[in-house]
Parts: sequence; structure tokens; C-alpha cells
Amino acid sequence: MSDLFALVERLYPICRSITGDGVRRTLEIVGESIPLQVHEVPTGTQVLDWTIPKEWNIRDAYIQDADGNRVVDFGASNLHVLGYSVPVSGTMSLAELRPRLHTLPEQPSLVPYRTSYYGETWGFCLAQETLDGFGEGPYEVLIDSTLEDGHLTYAEHVVPGRVSDEVIISCHTCHPSLANDNLAGIAVAVELAKRLAGTEPWYTYRFLFAPGTIGAITWLARNRVERVRHGFTLACAGDRGPLTYKRSRRGSEIDQVAAHVLKDREHTILDFTPYGYDERQFCSPGFNLGVGSLTRTTYAGYPEYHTSGDNLDFVSAEAMADTLDTCWDIVQVLDNNRRYLNLSPYGEPQLGRRGLYASLGGRSDTKELQMAMLWVLNLSDGEHTLLDIAERAGQPFAVLSEAARALHDAGLLKEQVA
Amino acid sequence: MSDLFALVERLYPICRSITGDGVRRTLEIVGESIPLQVHEVPTGTQVLDWTIPKEWNIRDAYIQDADGNRVVDFGASNLHVLGYSVPVSGTMSLAELRPRLHTLPEQPSLVPYRTSYYGETWGFCLAQETLDGFGEGPYEVLIDSTLEDGHLTYAEHVVPGRVSDEVIISCHTCHPSLANDNLAGIAVAVELAKRLAGTEPWYTYRFLFAPGTIGAITWLARNRVERVRHGFTLACAGDRGPLTYKRSRRGSEIDQVAAHVLKDREHTILDFTPYGYDERQFCSPGFNLGVGSLTRTTYAGYPEYHTSGDNLDFVSAEAMADTLDTCWDIVQVLDNNRRYLNLSPYGEPQLGRRGLYASLGGRSDTKELQMAMLWVLNLSDGEHTLLDIAERAGQPFAVLSEAARALHDAGLLKEQVA
Amino acid sequence: MSDLFALVERLYPICRSITGDGVRRTLEIVGESIPLQVHEVPTGTQVLDWTIPKEWNIRDAYIQDADGNRVVDFGASNLHVLGYSVPVSGTMSLAELRPRLHTLPEQPSLVPYRTSYYGETWGFCLAQETLDGFGEGPYEVLIDSTLEDGHLTYAEHVVPGRVSDEVIISCHTCHPSLANDNLAGIAVAVELAKRLAGTEPWYTYRFLFAPGTIGAITWLARNRVERVRHGFTLACAGDRGPLTYKRSRRGSEIDQVAAHVLKDREHTILDFTPYGYDERQFCSPGFNLGVGSLTRTTYAGYPEYHTSGDNLDFVSAEAMADTLDTCWDIVQVLDNNRRYLNLSPYGEPQLGRRGLYASLGGRSDTKELQMAMLWVLNLSDGEHTLLDIAERAGQPFAVLSEAARALHDAGLLKEQVA
Repeated sequence: MSDLFALVERLYPICRSITGDGVRRTLEIVGESIPLQVHEVPTGTQVLDWTIPKEWNIRDAYIQDADGNRVVDFGASNLHVLGYSVPVSGTMSLAELRPRLHTLPEQPSLVPYRTSYYGETWGFCLAQETLDGFGEGPYEVLIDSTLEDGHLTYAEHVVPGRVSDEVIISCHTCHPSLANDNLAGIAVAVELAKRLAGTEPWYTYRFLFAPGTIGAITWLARNRVERVRHGFTLACAGDRGPLTYKRSRRGSEIDQVAAHVLKDREHTILDFTPYGYDERQFCSPGFNLGVGSLTRTTYAGYPEYHTSGDNLDFVSAEAMADTLDTCWDIVQVLDNNRRYLNLSPYGEPQLGRRGLYASLGGRSDTKELQMAMLWVLNLSDGEHTLLDIAERAGQPFAVLSEAARALHDAGLLKEQVA
Repeated sequence: MSDLFALVERLYPICRSITGDGVRRTLEIVGESIPLQVHEVPTGTQVLDWTIPKEWNIRDAYIQDADGNRVVDFGASNLHVLGYSVPVSGTMSLAELRPRLHTLPEQPSLVPYRTSYYGETWGFCLAQETLDGFGEGPYEVLIDSTLEDGHLTYAEHVVPGRVSDEVIISCHTCHPSLANDNLAGIAVAVELAKRLAGTEPWYTYRFLFAPGTIGAITWLARNRVERVRHGFTLACAGDRGPLTYKRSRRGSEIDQVAAHVLKDREHTILDFTPYGYDERQFCSPGFNLGVGSLTRTTYAGYPEYHTSGDNLDFVSAEAMADTLDTCWDIVQVLDNNRRYLNLSPYGEPQLGRRGLYASLGGRSDTKELQMAMLWVLNLSDGEHTLLDIAERAGQPFAVLSEAARALHDAGLLKEQVA
Repeated sequence: MSDLFALVERLYPICRSITGDGVRRTLEIVGESIPLQVHEVPTGTQVLDWTIPKEWNIRDAYIQDADGNRVVDFGASNLHVLGYSVPVSGTMSLAELRPRLHTLPEQPSLVPYRTSYYGETWGFCLAQETLDGFGEGPYEVLIDSTLEDGHLTYAEHVVPGRVSDEVIISCHTCHPSLANDNLAGIAVAVELAKRLAGTEPWYTYRFLFAPGTIGAITWLARNRVERVRHGFTLACAGDRGPLTYKRSRRGSEIDQVAAHVLKDREHTILDFTPYGYDERQFCSPGFNLGVGSLTRTTYAGYPEYHTSGDNLDFVSAEAMADTLDTCWDIVQVLDNNRRYLNLSPYGEPQLGRRGLYASLGGRSDTKELQMAMLWVLNLSDGEHTLLDIAERAGQPFAVLSEAARALHDAGLLKEQVA
């Protein structure tokens, strides 16, 4: 738990965007916990329908009044600058400046988070309360940024499995000082990767740390996506609300697994919509991958969303730990969910002579494991996964999994390859 | 609205049946509003499993008491004669006459509507209250009718569309002085045809005015029905009850469209049954067309059904106007419901550089039209119509339709041909 | 009704097991009512994954105290001996004997029913109350049994039908003095077979009287099971609880028929589970037959289950008669459930000229049989059985069946062969 919060705290001050040194610094820090393969894709590279934009970096920015007070200061919060603002320097009246100022009149104490990646402009974001104190000016305005050819930076961490089929866990790295969206998601992904490192999973697990939209599109453009069997985007992983799972577009095994794991926790399940995080890209109709989305409170579902209210106080170590445990449980069920074929499908095989059945007949309190064996044998016809069987039987997945192992060891089951 | 009621009023006194001059006169009047192609099919013509019957015409009919009073008089209401009665003239006691007299003992003030098209007989229909006043007789009885070789008459009105696939809208023309069933249906069909005349619809719309059962069977026997893609029968279009839509037998797009249009109005949806109006014929298993039925109160669902109570007071101009608006909305959705293919299905296409997306990011109040574009792109995989997408997205059909046009104009969508 | 109870009463005292003379005697008595083909399968025969065990017979068994009192006596109840106990004779203290004694501490007045078919051992079953009165011993212990090569015995009764497709009705014959489980099932099966004998059914009905598990497995190993189209196991047919039907594994016509018949009775429908009676074997994935299970209170669902409380008082003649009537109704619907093809599928055929339709039109109170004819014509497209149509129409199966006969006789329907 302390690792989770500590990572969020450390990453929080960095000014990230869809490109630039803030992303690189973020990945360096993540790389201290888990090995990363970092990719740099040059400006101008065509990725699917998109083009890698110029790289943006910023050193300083402020609005200073006549008395020399920085009434809006990038140094105080990187949210104050409209993301991807082009450089500007000059003096102007409030009237000239006003169209460049973004506020939230209905949340007057909060600074909004705004960007303009694909339309070259500049601006400042500030609290309505701050703006209300502005005089006529003049104001000295500076944005010391660069928007030049460079690179888009993203990273991957891979936990190799016994098969090359992959589970992708993706979180966006492009947001500046916003704690829940998505530093909490990054932190949970890092800890999940650390837990998996000690295991020998069935699937290969690929963690993707990339900027939203353009990052996922870049990854999809440059990789063989047919190996992606399952996955989820991970975001808003630290707020105090209950868990939310959003189904993949095509309805897939990950949806069933997530619903199974979540059913004993307070949660909401949402149908797929083509809006939200990078499941939008993974679930575009051409790819149509089995990728859902796990959050606590859902995308844009809390008043602090995309404002300075999404700060370190907004996330809790306990909530992140709970998200991590949920991810772990999802991964455990997913990784052990198999399809078997009953090799003795005509009548029940005689379990007793294989030591798999109580010898004393007549008792009606048959044990849970024996019932699980009967269910596995009965439904292992190539049509049902263990999770299908668990849900049909109303038994815990772990018991079905144990029963399948015992039957497999006794030579009664063969694993089905998909 | 006044046109709707005026047409019903004008057609009301005419004595119609499945053949005869009353039908011809009705079609003449309809033909004053919309051009009609009138068909005359000779008696004896084989149509599917049926044969065109003899043509029936009637000039007068009465039961006259000894004092010379016409106690039952065709001149007062054409319902008084059993439809298709053969000629009769004579004097008889009440005891002899009684088996020929049809009443509604439980609705003693109403005259029933009865016919005998395929069993040659004669009879009178009258109020139970009238019958209760009858003495022993003798009575003079006259039915001055003819039942001879002739023709069955029906008519079509066609609004040409961009494709030859047809939508058929069918209403029965065989009922005498019954206002809701089906003069209101005829009136709504005429006004719908007039509204469509000014448009360039996608589908070709065919309006069928034909006697019930034998008329639909005649049309089905003489036409290439495979061009009929959608349709509905239109009847009971003027009573004050809420709307009812009865699904086609096979479950089809028209059912989905009607349910979508009706969901914001008070209404009932019924499953298909092989009884009712001519959807029975269109939905016979050999044809199995996508033809439903639109009524207000359903077939036989009101006490005045098939009685003298179904008169001009029973229908309202407002109700007919509402039925007409509903038909219009159904036609609009149906006609614009298309299946598109996303030509840029790998990841989202960059809408921003095409001017289809707000350039300022970070805001969560994405506009309805932008959401509609994302939905259309995501689900335009050849599997989903715009209406499917509208229902999945929970957005109005018109917004999805607008989004699809914008995307199509930007070259991002291709129209799918079914 | 009296026959049902009398048979249970007569079979009750006999000591049955999965093999042995008790089974043979039981089948002899059944054979007095219906002709049986009795099969004897030698010890050691391989049947599917199993082997026919040794044959077990028993003459006497007791525990006698130092005063010569038989404190546990096979003569008083055959439940007192652990089924398949090997012979034993000797004197032992309570301490030595105690591990061999089976009781129900939570139902202290009842004797449990226990067996050990596939692990050679011996033991006694007794009431906890009896055990509580035991002193230290010594006790004289005798089980005068044999466990030797012999045979497994089962029997079949066949009612030939017009087609060789079979309906199998199976009841287990291996339980000693337990009335509901399964003497009541045997009695109901016998009476059902007697009722069927007088009819000329469509299907061939095969009644199977065999020991649980190993008997069904033996039958399945030795027969062409592909001729089994439908079936159900019949057990617990005499208790005073409501009826229970457990669906077949694959979901099949018998499930639909049973649900249809039961819907007017107090009942429960259960999904298939791979535990219970011999539907476990018939529904193993290799066979996957359309075999459900009919009981009153379900398997292991009553406190007296597998105890001395399942005695003659526990079953009622009325309950058995009700089970029998239910079986009869199921068989009647199943046997008459056909798929027809409408030979005049384009439009409705003219029923009037075939004398199948009231000639007087205009009435809305169309008769039930006429509606049934319209439904049969409309849905006889090769996709729907009469029962499908009955359920869709909300009409009684018998009326649909009568309508189909009338239409078939008029040459409008052809029977579909599956």
C-alpha cells in the first residue's frame, strides 16, 4: 500500500503531456520498479489514420500583474497552462487576455485541465475565484515552451507466459498533476506487474504505458495485435468510490472474468461505449479486441475529474490496494480459465477406483470437491470453460480449478487448445 | 386534420362489400386525392387457394309490417342487410323470418355487421330493441340485390423511390358504414401518400386499397412479392384509444422501427397472431413478409367493433391526425435507416483534422453529435443499422442520422447494400 | 391407486442391492404385472469405464448382547446392514465394534441407509438412540453374507410404437426397504406401462428397471442409445410434496413437454445438475440424451431420505396416482407432438369451402378450434412443433392437436419426419 501511494506522490509534480520530457521522466521512475522497454517514435510518423505530432516541452509560464505578482504561475501548478500551448511573451490588457483564460464558473475554486494538441494555440487555466480578482491589466504574459519536431515516448513491460497469447494492461501517461487520472492507474499497474513477476503465468502479460489516444493508436499501428487475447485499460484506480468495469465491445472472456471477480465486491458493470479511455482504440471495429476497462469511479464520473481537485488528497492508499487486489483476482481467474475435454465422456468414469470419490455410498452430503469433479466431467465437452462451469455450478472458481487439476492428473481430462 | 375527417364523412354512407359498385365509388373518391391504378379481376379467376367470387350489388332492402312501416330499412343503414344476401321477395310470419334476423342481445341498441360471402343465403341485421317490438307478422320482405359474374375491384397508388424495394401500406376497403374500421385507415393512408408525394424517398411506397382477405390474396397472387421489404396494414386509425402495433410474423425491421417511434407515445405492442387484418395474408408462412399492423384500439378490441356504434361519432380528427403523424415518423425512420461500413475501422479516425471534433481537449461535456459520430464509427461494421446504433447509444435516430451524413460526406463511411 | 400402493407394500420387505436375489425377486413380482425381459450380466464384465462387481447376497445379520438379545437385527430391517458387507462372525467389545456402526446423531431415532459397493468392508446401521443404550460389550457379531462372482440383474419392458425411436423411462431397483426411493417410482412405472399397453403409441416406450449408476451404465454399454429420443428417470414418486422436474443436460423436447404439463400443477422445475439419479449417466456428455428426471420431492430433498423414515407411511397412494397421471399427460403430449408442413403456405387456404370455417363472417368471437387451425397453418413451416404452436398461441395442446388432425385430413398438412 505504501508503495502505491509513494509512487503517485513522486510522479504527481511532473508536467506530462502526450509527448515530452515529463513523460520520459515518468517512465524513468516507473523503470526503477519494473524493467521497461521505452519507444521513441519521431514526429511526422504515420500511425493508422493519425500522425505523430510535434513534441512539446515547457519550462515556465505565468501571468504577472503590474505589481510583479504572478497571479497565475506554472510553477505552482502545471495545470495552469493549456497543454500544448505555443510560446508567447508580451503585455496585454485583461480584455485581450480574457479569451485565453479557461475557468470553471460552477466550480469556482478549481483549476480546469485543458489541452489543445492538434490546434496550435495558447492559454491559461485558473480558478474562477482567481479570475474574479483580476483588474483591467495590463498583465505580463509568458509561456516559455517549445513545440518542435521530436518524439512520442511510450513504454512496455512484459511478463512472459507459457503461451505467446497476450493479456494487455494499458494505462495512459499523458496527464500532468492529476492523481486519480491517471497516476493511481500507473501505480496499480506497476505493483501488479511486480506481483506477476514472481509467477509463471499461462498468458504473456504486456503492460503498456503510453499517452491517451495517440499512444494507443501508435502501439496498435506498430504491433501484431492478433496476439492480444484479453486486456483492460486501468485508470481512476485510487478514488474512494466503488469499482466499475466497462465491458469490451464484442463481449469477451475478460468481461465474464471481471464480472465473476467483482460480484462479491460493491461494483458497477457498464456496457461498452465508444468514449472513455483507450478501450476506444482497442475496441475500434477493425481491431475489436477483448479489452475492457477497470476504474473505480468511472471516466468523468466525479466532480473533481480533470480539475485541480484530482489531487493527492483525492486518492487513497486503501482504494489503490483494493484495485490492485481486484486486478490480481481477475488475472488469477483469467490465467487459470481453461477448456478441457472429458476423455471418458460415456457415463461417469468410476472415480472411486481412482481414489477421487468417497467409498461409502448413501450419504447425501457429498463434498464440494466431488460435486466440482462431476460438474467438470459433465461440462468438459469443449464448449465450456472452467469459469462457465463454475457459474453454472454455483461453485467457486478455485474449487472447479482444483477439481480439474485432480481429474487431469488422473488422465480423465485433456486440455483443449483454443 | 379536416381533410382526414372530411374523407371519412364522405365515404361513410356508401355500401361497400368485397366486390361491387360501392368499392368502385370509394376508389373514385380516393382517386380525387391521389392517382390510383384500379384493377378489375373477373369472377372465377383463381387466386392462390381461392377463386374470385361473384360480384354483389344491392339497390334496396326492407322488412315492412302490415301497416306499411319499414321496420328494417337498408335506406336508413346499409348494415341492416347481411352482406352478400341473395335476392328475396315475399311475405312471411315472424316465426319464418326469425332465423334470418341477426341481433346483439347484449348490446340491444346496436345493429351488428354480418356477411356471408361464401355461403349463399340472405338475412337482415337489426337492433335487439327493434326485434323486441316485432309482432307475429306477417311481414313483407324484400332484398333487391344481384349476385352475378362480375369483378373484384382494388387499387394501388405508388410513390416511386430511389430503389425498387417496396414498402407496402395496405388498408381494407370492404366494410360498409363503419367509420373506424376502416374508413379512418383509408383516410390516413391517403394523407400519408399525399405527404410522401413531395419527397424523394429511398424506398418505393405502394399503397394498396383492397377488400379484406380476398383482396390481399388477389394482390399477392398477381404480383412479385419479393420486392416487398417492409410494410404494415393500417386500420382502426381513428378511435380515441392509444396506438397499437402488431409485429410481423418473422420479426423484422419494421417492427423495430415502429417500436422505436412508438416508445415516446402511449402505445401497446402485440406479438404476431394469425388473426386480424391482412397481415394474416402477408405473413402467411410461404410469403412471410416483414409486414406488421398499425391500429389505434386493436382489431375487435372495442365494444362498437362491427356494429352500428362504429359511426362518425366514434372517430376523431385528432386521433386520425395522430395516427398519420405516427405513420409519418415510422416512414421517416424506416426510409433513413441504413447500414454503413466504417472505412477507417482501425482505431478512431482523427475527426479533428476533418473539422468534425472540437479541438479543445479535456472537457467532459462532449457534444451529442460527437458522441453520435463515435457510435456510428464504432458500430458501422456491416452488422448494425443506424437504428440499431441509436438504440444502443440511447440517442435520437435523427442525431445518428445526421452524424452518419457528416461522416459519409467526410469519406469515412460507405453505404452498405443489403 | 390401490394397485400402486399394494405393489410398494409387497416389494418393501425385500433386501435389494445393486446385485443379488433381492433384485431378482423384485423383478419377478414386477413381471406379474407387465412382461419383462430380464438380463443377467456376469461379474467382471467391462461396461464403459466400469466393471460388473461381485454379486452380493445376505441371509442374516445381527449384533447380540451378552444376554442373548439381538440389539441390532437384519430380520427387523434390512437397513441395519451396510450394503455389500463382507461376511463376519466374532465377539468384540463396543470399542472394537464402534468404527463399524453408522448412525445419524441429528436424527437419533432413524436408521441410516449406507452401502460400500466398491470398497470391501462391513458394518451396521442403527439409530443413535439404540447406540446410546449400548454397554461396553462384549457383543456377538454376525453377518451371514456372500460376495462372490455372479451377475448383475436388470430388466426391460417394451411397448412397441409406430416408429423405432424410443422413449426411455428408467427407475432404479437397488434400494432395500425404502418406500419413496424408489419403490414408488417402480410402482408408477409399472402402472404407466400397463396404461400404455392398450394404446398404439407413436414412439416405442422402453421401461428400464436397473440398479442405480452401474445398472444404467450397463444398459448404456450394451445398447444402441441413438434410438433414444426422449426419456426421464422416475424416482421419489410417492411422497406428499409437489412435483419436481429436472431438465435434461442439453435442453430437449421432453423438458418442454414436462414444463407444459406441469404448468397447471404445483411444481418446481430444476436445471440439470450432474448429481441425482441415472439422468447423470444418460446425460453424460458422450451420450447427452434428452433424458430428464421426474420426482415429487427432489433427490435428497426430504429429511427421511436414505433413512428408515422413508417407509410405507411416508408414501401415499394419492401422491403416486398424481405422479402417474402426470407421467401419462407427459407421454400423451410427447407422443402427439409433431412437426407439420403447411402444403398451402401462400396466403391462408380457403377453409370455408373445406367445411373447416364458419360461413357467417363479421363475428369477432371466432371459435377456439378455428384459431387453432390458423395457428397451425401459420406456424407449420417445418420449424415449429405442435407444442411450440400451442405455447405461442396460448391454447391447449389438445386443441392444437385436433386442429392439426382436421387440417391433415383435409390434405392441407404433411407430417414432417425429423
